[in-house]
Amino acid sequence: MATPLEQALATVVSTFRKYAELSGGKHGLCQAGLKELLQKELPTWTPMGLRECDYSAFMSVLDTDKDCKVDFVEYVRSLACLCTFCHDYFEDVTPMTPCSQ
Amino acid sequence: MATPLEQALATVVSTFRKYAELSGGKHGLCQAGLKELLQKELPTWTPMGLRECDYSAFMSVLDTDKDCKVDFVEYVRSLACLCTFCHDYFEDVTPMTPCSQ
Repeated sequence: MATPLEQALATVVSTFRKYAELSGGKHGLCQAGLKELLQKELPTWTPMGLRECDYSAFMSVLDTDKDCKVDFVEYVRSLACLCTFCHDYFEDVTPMTPCSQ
Repeated sequence: MATPLEQALATVVSTFRKYAELSGGKHGLCQAGLKELLQKELPTWTPMGLRECDYSAFMSVLDTDKDCKVDFVEYVRSLACLCTFCHDYFEDVTPMTPCSQ
């Protein structure tokens, strides 16, 4: 059985694939696919009420090679940045003892 | 409730933190910590019977700034490479229909 970290990596890969296929191909996310992925898979990190121009700006930042799609390397780079932000944010926080209930 | 992708990112962050603390600090994995993380959290990707010199070589590849520890950015970069390898490997495979049972 896969460990939590192995399952996490599989989720990163399969989530991209799901939304790339909704975008009409396996090789990248169009803006609509990226928007749907953000809203459905990263709702905690996606503010409510973003406008289409906000998604367009986000797409522009992620699409570093400017081919009008977010490919896997660009997608995983953005997740790595998100992880690094979380790590830095919580780095000096002492973990709380889990609740007994 | 967190989505699978949000849980995946949390797992990436918390796994590093767990093994960094075992390594004696929050800021990086020593070679023993890296070895334990690989063996316990990524067993599918860690060949049986690796020698200490193999872990040392792996440590050397990951530790790009040569400070004798694998920091979070180096760790997450290696996971991103692993995800990219999996994505490329499965890119042209047609997903199988899930079993009905």
